[in-house]
Amino acid sequence: MRRKITYTFVIYKTFPCFLLKMNEKSYLCCSLNNLIMATISEIKNRLAALRKQMQTHQLSAFIVPSTDPHSGEYVPEHWESRKWISGFTGSAGTAVITLEDAGLWTDSRYFIQAEEQLAGTGIRLFKDRLPETPSITEWLGSILKKGDKVGIDGWVNSHQEASGIQQELKTYGVELETMTQDIFDAIWENRPGLPQTPVFILDETRTGTSCTDKISRIQEAIAKNGASAIILSALDEIAWTLNLRGDDVHCNPVFISYLLISKEGHTLYILEEKITGEVRQYLNLHHVEIKSYSALAEDLRTFEESHQGILQISPLANEALYNLSAQYADTIVQASPVALMKAVKNESEQAGFRKAMERDGVALVKFLRWLKEAVATGNETELSVDKKLYELRSEQADFKGISFDTIAGYKEHAAIVHYEATPETDIPLKPEGLLLLDSGAQYLDGTTDITRTIALGPLTEEEKTDYTLVLKGHLHLQNAHFPAGTCGTQLDVLARIAMWKAGINYLHGTGHGIGHFLCVHEGPHQIRMNHMPTLLEPGMIVTDEPGIYKGGRHGIRTENTLLIVPAQETEFGKFYRFEPLTLCPIDKEAIAIDLMTDEELTWLNEYHQLVYQRLYPLLNEEEQAWLKEATNPLNR
Amino acid sequence: MRRKITYTFVIYKTFPCFLLKMNEKSYLCCSLNNLIMATISEIKNRLAALRKQMQTHQLSAFIVPSTDPHSGEYVPEHWESRKWISGFTGSAGTAVITLEDAGLWTDSRYFIQAEEQLAGTGIRLFKDRLPETPSITEWLGSILKKGDKVGIDGWVNSHQEASGIQQELKTYGVELETMTQDIFDAIWENRPGLPQTPVFILDETRTGTSCTDKISRIQEAIAKNGASAIILSALDEIAWTLNLRGDDVHCNPVFISYLLISKEGHTLYILEEKITGEVRQYLNLHHVEIKSYSALAEDLRTFEESHQGILQISPLANEALYNLSAQYADTIVQASPVALMKAVKNESEQAGFRKAMERDGVALVKFLRWLKEAVATGNETELSVDKKLYELRSEQADFKGISFDTIAGYKEHAAIVHYEATPETDIPLKPEGLLLLDSGAQYLDGTTDITRTIALGPLTEEEKTDYTLVLKGHLHLQNAHFPAGTCGTQLDVLARIAMWKAGINYLHGTGHGIGHFLCVHEGPHQIRMNHMPTLLEPGMIVTDEPGIYKGGRHGIRTENTLLIVPAQETEFGKFYRFEPLTLCPIDKEAIAIDLMTDEELTWLNEYHQLVYQRLYPLLNEEEQAWLKEATNPLNR
Repeated sequence: MRRKITYTFVIYKTFPCFLLKMNEKSYLCCSLNNLIMATISEIKNRLAALRKQMQTHQLSAFIVPSTDPHSGEYVPEHWESRKWISGFTGSAGTAVITLEDAGLWTDSRYFIQAEEQLAGTGIRLFKDRLPETPSITEWLGSILKKGDKVGIDGWVNSHQEASGIQQELKTYGVELETMTQDIFDAIWENRPGLPQTPVFILDETRTGTSCTDKISRIQEAIAKNGASAIILSALDEIAWTLNLRGDDVHCNPVFISYLLISKEGHTLYILEEKITGEVRQYLNLHHVEIKSYSALAEDLRTFEESHQGILQISPLANEALYNLSAQYADTIVQASPVALMKAVKNESEQAGFRKAMERDGVALVKFLRWLKEAVATGNETELSVDKKLYELRSEQADFKGISFDTIAGYKEHAAIVHYEATPETDIPLKPEGLLLLDSGAQYLDGTTDITRTIALGPLTEEEKTDYTLVLKGHLHLQNAHFPAGTCGTQLDVLARIAMWKAGINYLHGTGHGIGHFLCVHEGPHQIRMNHMPTLLEPGMIVTDEPGIYKGGRHGIRTENTLLIVPAQETEFGKFYRFEPLTLCPIDKEAIAIDLMTDEELTWLNEYHQLVYQRLYPLLNEEEQAWLKEATNPLNR
Repeated sequence: MRRKITYTFVIYKTFPCFLLKMNEKSYLCCSLNNLIMATISEIKNRLAALRKQMQTHQLSAFIVPSTDPHSGEYVPEHWESRKWISGFTGSAGTAVITLEDAGLWTDSRYFIQAEEQLAGTGIRLFKDRLPETPSITEWLGSILKKGDKVGIDGWVNSHQEASGIQQELKTYGVELETMTQDIFDAIWENRPGLPQTPVFILDETRTGTSCTDKISRIQEAIAKNGASAIILSALDEIAWTLNLRGDDVHCNPVFISYLLISKEGHTLYILEEKITGEVRQYLNLHHVEIKSYSALAEDLRTFEESHQGILQISPLANEALYNLSAQYADTIVQASPVALMKAVKNESEQAGFRKAMERDGVALVKFLRWLKEAVATGNETELSVDKKLYELRSEQADFKGISFDTIAGYKEHAAIVHYEATPETDIPLKPEGLLLLDSGAQYLDGTTDITRTIALGPLTEEEKTDYTLVLKGHLHLQNAHFPAGTCGTQLDVLARIAMWKAGINYLHGTGHGIGHFLCVHEGPHQIRMNHMPTLLEPGMIVTDEPGIYKGGRHGIRTENTLLIVPAQETEFGKFYRFEPLTLCPIDKEAIAIDLMTDEELTWLNEYHQLVYQRLYPLLNEEEQAWLKEATNPLNR
């Protein structure tokens, strides 16, 4: 039976796409590459083809995750095997196919969508993180026999994940078979190829450090572990090391590749079509050889003949890479030193961030000035204001797209922490209540991430109280000083203590690192309740984003991006503080001033003074007047 | 050569002792049992005797720590082998004897004392925690040959410690030999015996739970690990489980013993002389058999014949016990469940604590009222005021001694965090500057621990500022609310954030648990900068004791003991708060009121109101008038 499909062509968040009507109430947004949504019989044919392959390889089950060989947050279409085999198009989920059965595990954000998309395919939905739902290995353990084999594609599972699955299956006497060939290659017709967008150089005036210097630092760092070579597979680590950027992955300016750094020489494994003459010359200058993306496996097989010493590989590298390394080289598994190097921004990167934040701030001021008036017309929705913000940002110099999919949630929508407005869920904005807007952009000189919650008109007392509690937490963290040797977990409570007294909490982290024209979520440091051992250091960037989410009522979050800078040195050692990078007024209309202490009012006014001073020269006269009003000191 | 020794007999902190003159400036305080300090030739004879034993056992070195079989904070004299072999009488240190050389490792508190006491003995001083000092195993690794054996007494090293030493020696090809016989027995003439103080019953009206109920809970807990038997060796865990107390260890009302709990029956291993007819009858009633202290080793050798199932043992149990268990029983190493059970106080224990704190508060009010006047006379010293406080506490009902050695530090003495006044260091108090007084008592219904820093007269601006910063931190922690699932590390910053802004920090923890008429330092929860995973729960007791220490100037600490109680339950779950148990005014004279926020003043006044209400009925008229003044609201 073919499913009846109605569709409309739309431009959604600057991406051309098709809007598919699923039923009376629900639409689905498909990119051009996914234009023809799979029919039930197509899914069944695909499952049959996979099962045939499984039989050839004597596998009783096959696990298809949503990841790629580089463990990033977003996955190029080439590796969207899980979407292809199941027909489920959500961003998170794992399909497990046995010879007679099949299941898909996904989380609560996708329960309704998955139920609709899986209907009739024979794939059951397993609702992840519900107490009654078995884990994948528990389910497999309950239906497979001892000695049965479960397959995974070693290239798209990290060593850490694969080891965990193997350990768990072992308790049932079931074996894990790590394949090094892509089982979907033989059965996926018209499979999208690897992205072919060109790689480009990020100038040293922006990066502040040359590729050669970075490679030397990496070599020094791995030498401390006794290693003389390292394979980088995290795309942002490769882009940072080489001072190159690309456009292969949604929101992230990275390019698909591996990088081998060794005493004997450095090699970038990449589709060679992506390398222009200029980039080739540049890499040559820095003694980095270029080889095809697939050549890494072959080179590892002869590693011991061509290289001396120990090879370092990250526990987050994919399992196939780990197995090849372990088989053909003297290997140690150790976290990559690049994560920490990349997290500490140098002077040029810091200066770039400040400039990018000024341009982002200008766009935001223009947007906020427009917003409250526009809402009064009754024509705006969650998606339309996102579109407007995109337009304003794209007018700014060095703009290279958004840094993550905007969260624009009005009223009760904002209480859904992972809410992303779609044509299906979009609602009109009225001149009342709160609009939560979490957005960011990529600029050549920095990456931005900001959340403002905006009063579109009259608010309830509860909305004002919650807004103020969030603001208090935000300000207490932003204004903290702390000694060298402090980790983010120790500071997290500063953003929560005010709301805890009111019996309120939020379950997400308070802050994450941000890349320099790279990924908007970057480790290894964080500010969160769980223990994170990485110490906070000057030059690190971290967000400050407490929130309150009340199901069916409202969601509030206030987020600035902060830079850690030295504060003072005393007989007790070095102390650090935060410099706010984000430059954008915080809506004063939503504040319950009675709940603010004098110190908190001073902090708010100081921040607004900073925003005013930095943005004023960059605005036209009307905008300046608006900014003056928006940043005027708030007093009792 | 005999050392010339001059001594005086004194009563120091209620303990009769001898004061030995070391040189013109330094005295040493010796208890009656240590009356005759060893001469250099005696130490040399002892070392020779030990080396002879080592040769018999084919050992190239022997490590003598400061611990006993029960890993407590204080060690009975019977196990003070390190003091006996080295002549060094400090509380912390490890002696290492090789066939030709010897070393003693101790920390900075004891550098001067150790240098004097080791002079001429041939034992070198290794200054612990200095970068240039080798660790014990590094030193041994550098002077021993591959295949050499290093001995330890398995009974006085924990399994965890012994495993660490073994691991480290292995890298040098050196073996660790764990002896199960006490090598000092053969060579230590007139060695003090095991303490013989009688054990007594702590009434169920005080403990709230019967011994039988506690044993059942322990059995349920170990069953979750698959175990059916457990050996307890931590003395406070045994005392808590059996609702018994003793007087074997300085400041801690515990008794030397082991406790085996198993399906087949329970056995207390203890010197039988310590058991009165009443206690024997009581234990019989609760089905606990009594055997001699040394019988445990024999019983373990036949464990598999007499018991079924798995035996659980703590990683903190001693290595000899671990080895016997591992050899003769199916053993798992797992933290004892008693620590967490003991940490959560039941209603009776909580009520007892409140009553004990009232009596302690009465003694403290009498003391503080006396202090400022007494200082004016010019006759008081650090030790004399401690003696006065002891007398006032001992007048209170159910008083059973101090819970730790008092820290009474005047002016710059208080900047030494571990300062303990001795006749050698004691100084007169003048009507100026700050006196830090950290003290506590054991009562039958609870254990107390309080620090107050008292203005004896005019203060400098810096003293006032620092006093106020400490107070701010103290109040912010005491007044925190927090959700279920919070651990102490998350709250620690609340006590520090104010002083961090001033570039000040303290390096000790902010809070520790306290036993119920048991040890004043109790785990497993803590409030400190380092990661401690134990979650805070209602019924737990924890101290709140931030401090500022400025070398050569002053030391300030303000400490209350707090009880965790429920605060509220909301759509976000359960929230907890602290109830202050300590009842004693905080000196208002030292506060720089301008640095206090309105909220902080309210918190201080609320606490003082509580102190006033609870203590007022228990005082005479003059004391009531003093208390009213001391707890009057502080306003701008």
